[in-house]
Amino acid sequence: MPVTPEQQAEIDAERSAPRQTLRATSPGIEQHLYTAHPVLDHGFVRVVDYMGDDAAICQAARVSYGKGTKSVQNDEGLIRYLMRHWHSTPFEMCEVKLHVKLPVFVARQWIRHRTANVNEYSARYSILDREFYIPAPDALNAQSVINNQGRGEVLQGEEAARVLDILKSDSNRAYDHYESMISAEGQQGLARELARMNLPANIYTQWYWKVDLHNLLHFLRLRADSHAQYEIRVYADVICNIVADWVPFAFKAFEDYRLGAVTMSAQMVDCLRRMLKGEDVNPENSGMSKREWREFMEMVE
Amino acid sequence: MPVTPEQQAEIDAERSAPRQTLRATSPGIEQHLYTAHPVLDHGFVRVVDYMGDDAAICQAARVSYGKGTKSVQNDEGLIRYLMRHWHSTPFEMCEVKLHVKLPVFVARQWIRHRTANVNEYSARYSILDREFYIPAPDALNAQSVINNQGRGEVLQGEEAARVLDILKSDSNRAYDHYESMISAEGQQGLARELARMNLPANIYTQWYWKVDLHNLLHFLRLRADSHAQYEIRVYADVICNIVADWVPFAFKAFEDYRLGAVTMSAQMVDCLRRMLKGEDVNPENSGMSKREWREFMEMVE
Amino acid sequence: MPVTPEQQAEIDAERSAPRQTLRATSPGIEQHLYTAHPVLDHGFVRVVDYMGDDAAICQAARVSYGKGTKSVQNDEGLIRYLMRHWHSTPFEMCEVKLHVKLPVFVARQWIRHRTANVNEYSARYSILDREFYIPAPDALNAQSVINNQGRGEVLQGEEAARVLDILKSDSNRAYDHYESMISAEGQQGLARELARMNLPANIYTQWYWKVDLHNLLHFLRLRADSHAQYEIRVYADVICNIVADWVPFAFKAFEDYRLGAVTMSAQMVDCLRRMLKGEDVNPENSGMSKREWREFMEMVE
Amino acid sequence: MPVTPEQQAEIDAERSAPRQTLRATSPGIEQHLYTAHPVLDHGFVRVVDYMGDDAAICQAARVSYGKGTKSVQNDEGLIRYLMRHWHSTPFEMCEVKLHVKLPVFVARQWIRHRTANVNEYSARYSILDREFYIPAPDALNAQSVINNQGRGEVLQGEEAARVLDILKSDSNRAYDHYESMISAEGQQGLARELARMNLPANIYTQWYWKVDLHNLLHFLRLRADSHAQYEIRVYADVICNIVADWVPFAFKAFEDYRLGAVTMSAQMVDCLRRMLKGEDVNPENSGMSKREWREFMEMVE
Repeated sequence: MPVTPEQQAEIDAERSAPRQTLRATSPGIEQHLYTAHPVLDHGFVRVVDYMGDDAAICQAARVSYGKGTKSVQNDEGLIRYLMRHWHSTPFEMCEVKLHVKLPVFVARQWIRHRTANVNEYSARYSILDREFYIPAPDALNAQSVINNQGRGEVLQGEEAARVLDILKSDSNRAYDHYESMISAEGQQGLARELARMNLPANIYTQWYWKVDLHNLLHFLRLRADSHAQYEIRVYADVICNIVADWVPFAFKAFEDYRLGAVTMSAQMVDCLRRMLKGEDVNPENSGMSKREWREFMEMVE
Repeated sequence: MPVTPEQQAEIDAERSAPRQTLRATSPGIEQHLYTAHPVLDHGFVRVVDYMGDDAAICQAARVSYGKGTKSVQNDEGLIRYLMRHWHSTPFEMCEVKLHVKLPVFVARQWIRHRTANVNEYSARYSILDREFYIPAPDALNAQSVINNQGRGEVLQGEEAARVLDILKSDSNRAYDHYESMISAEGQQGLARELARMNLPANIYTQWYWKVDLHNLLHFLRLRADSHAQYEIRVYADVICNIVADWVPFAFKAFEDYRLGAVTMSAQMVDCLRRMLKGEDVNPENSGMSKREWREFMEMVE
Repeated sequence: MPVTPEQQAEIDAERSAPRQTLRATSPGIEQHLYTAHPVLDHGFVRVVDYMGDDAAICQAARVSYGKGTKSVQNDEGLIRYLMRHWHSTPFEMCEVKLHVKLPVFVARQWIRHRTANVNEYSARYSILDREFYIPAPDALNAQSVINNQGRGEVLQGEEAARVLDILKSDSNRAYDHYESMISAEGQQGLARELARMNLPANIYTQWYWKVDLHNLLHFLRLRADSHAQYEIRVYADVICNIVADWVPFAFKAFEDYRLGAVTMSAQMVDCLRRMLKGEDVNPENSGMSKREWREFMEMVE
Repeated sequence: MPVTPEQQAEIDAERSAPRQTLRATSPGIEQHLYTAHPVLDHGFVRVVDYMGDDAAICQAARVSYGKGTKSVQNDEGLIRYLMRHWHSTPFEMCEVKLHVKLPVFVARQWIRHRTANVNEYSARYSILDREFYIPAPDALNAQSVINNQGRGEVLQGEEAARVLDILKSDSNRAYDHYESMISAEGQQGLARELARMNLPANIYTQWYWKVDLHNLLHFLRLRADSHAQYEIRVYADVICNIVADWVPFAFKAFEDYRLGAVTMSAQMVDCLRRMLKGEDVNPENSGMSKREWREFMEMVE
């Protein structure tokens, strides 16, 4: 169960007490505030705070462009223009703070996004809970045979059963030993900062993660992508839904100009123009490597 | 006049419409929202948005330290502990967005603080207003004779009058020429991105500046310091007042452990210990350079 | 003259004394070391130091991918793969330090790239030289009538002459007054940190600028672009030549996948596929705004 | 054994081939280049590349201060002045790239220093080696009873033996299962990106870590501190030795003004002044909490 009764009571209390503010508010994200959206078997994402809305993006852009911006008639048009032309600073004017519970191996990928603020639960200071990520049957894949960094078919039958059994029993044994090493009953008890080293990477941790909208969209572009590891992609998907409710114009522009967009190399653009003129362009006369040609075909077919 | 009637009408409109939110609010900073605090002759600082309060700092710290934090009884004690021991990440969980109008030479110092988000008025895109910083008589100082990077006495009489006259007439002439170069009457008109190069560094610009509390306090430590240039210090002073109302526990801790604190070198600590034991410590037996000794004396006397 | 005799003597001295090192070296950039490449009328770019080469990019990537990288046969192929798939961290493993002399209004654009290290000449501390950027006749353009942020035709005849005359005489008068305000002859002399405010934005400043290759390429993508202001683009062009000599594989990949590449939105890709199937796609049935359609046509024609 | 014969051969090859360069070199760090300094039972630190030396710090500072800096007679004096007065940008002009092998739980602390460039071995892509950190007997401490985040006495006898036995057997079992899950013999084999989740936090990883000197010194101040966890402190200690050879003036200044320095709060400075005047200052009339008083006593006694 991803949220404890205590946490739920805390969430309910926070949600029951609206306050007055003079700040900009976004009704779409207010609905998400504090609610824990479940992810994987024990994880969650919840919005703890936010700053700004679609209008805040335009407000900042209009400070930059002064009176000149009047030519863009409406907020959505301006936001789409900014996104299309990589004017990133106005998107930095919105900020969101999330509380995330996630397996350690996912946290290690996530933290590589450096332009963000983080407070993580400290296993030097406190004792971790007995909560481990055990993949659902349909997320238990074989190694891809064509991509070093990817998954193949879902494991079946005996092989799947054996893997699940290992993951469960090793997790539990590691936690039993963690507990017994730090226990102070009849012994001194190992320092927590040492005992934690026995815990595997599928144990859950949690953190507060605060990031501006520009850097969040960059994170989502990489992590909501089909090549991202499934276990981080499900977090990115949940966050996409939150952002769509928070800043709907910005998110739509992000879908059109980033998530659904493609970048073509100089060679690809050249081939494309020749194809549109009716020329027969093929791998041999394309000037591309085989791998690039394959990527090009996926873009245009 | 720092705020135009149009801007004042906009401020009044924004201040007259409180909204409901489930987010944390800080009553102290709500009172500042949108109000333009005048700085120098045409500048201002106004709070456009904020995220978090003193409790948000503790909330993030308690995620880090888990149940272990219960031993710290109250929020103020925890905040003081965090500040004293340089645990900076919980302070990054608060964020503020300011609209600032300031002379260009001040903007050039300010922008050196890199960990912040900025949207500045673009003189490539739009036309700057005829507003220049002309120092008040008591801010018109001579070059310091002991510090290459500082001010000496206030200029008096004829010298002061001559300097003010130069600053005013050069500013106005530069602006007249700027206007005449970009004018499209009877000519093509020079590109704005070129014409602006004729404008001096005391012209006013404006920007939105968004920063987290940790980095804001770092900015304030350097810029509210007595060695900072007067023209940026007056902005820092106004922001200090805002922060004191926003996060009173954090600001008090900042005053005690940063603004009012001193850092003593290994040699200084050694001398201090010897002095407390009654030893006669002097420049010769201190192990310090003359300059360091002078700095040490300022700390302890 | 961009380089003083003293500076040239210093450059010559540094170039005449090769040293032994065990580090990776790049012969291409060694040839540039210390040499001042002139830019605009008084500016320059010179390489002061560098770290890494094409092989260093691959070395770092191979640490990431371990034995798995052996499948990529050669360095150039690996670098092209990394660039195409936005794997940016290996490019951060190279670093370059430049000494740049540039007009203040160019410096103000440049400094907006935050992920870099900078030490700028301080006009609080020292006295600026009498050097101003005065555009060459073919860089003296009218305001664009179709783009708020761009240039139109080159100014001709009387209008050009009048503009040049203003820029020159205002620069010189501003500097004369700067000098007379700070002079200590027969007066106290205004503080340097105040007197500088009289100087216009076309005065030259200089700085050391240190940046990693990934962030440098991002800078070059924006500033070597045809929409960048001419006065910063000429610096970007000179740096492009240096980078091409320093890391030739990386620079070629950058040209193909960034400088010469285009990004198409979801709607553009959809239209493109329909066009390749022979469908008649026009602005009306494209699902794009007029502006986007125009941008799309520029990509494919 | 921290370095494999293949790695040693590679190190020897790189060390045997000095090249010519026109760049600044630091003889002190050239001696460290490529050599793997052992840390813990399987870890190491080795210098892969560097940029700059003590003179480069001064060179950058002198660009900032222009002719004004001539008053500081020598490089060491200038460097000490910069360090004492928190002028950090000149220290950013030096850069170092390290290859580090370290346990995952150490890597997770280390990565929290965001201003650095990192390429880590990818366990999504490649297979990790069977190498685990098992503490030496004198590094196997009990939990501190006075500090939630610290260590107490070294464990003895049966308790120590039992802990070591758990750590060793759990590590080996986890690795056996990891291998058997990914094996493709007679089965498909679990994806590497999933199988790695079974591995505990004492497994070794490795990365290239590149950082500027200012941020490196900040890292060292926190991680070479006596309150840092032993397992990261030993890495910091090795790096301190390298930095002392690389930039001896900067490192000495760092020792005096950072490592060996203390920061006193406003209340502490007030008490100190009263004590030096002969007043009897005690916890009750100090204006400090008990905890602060204890910290103060540690500074002055």
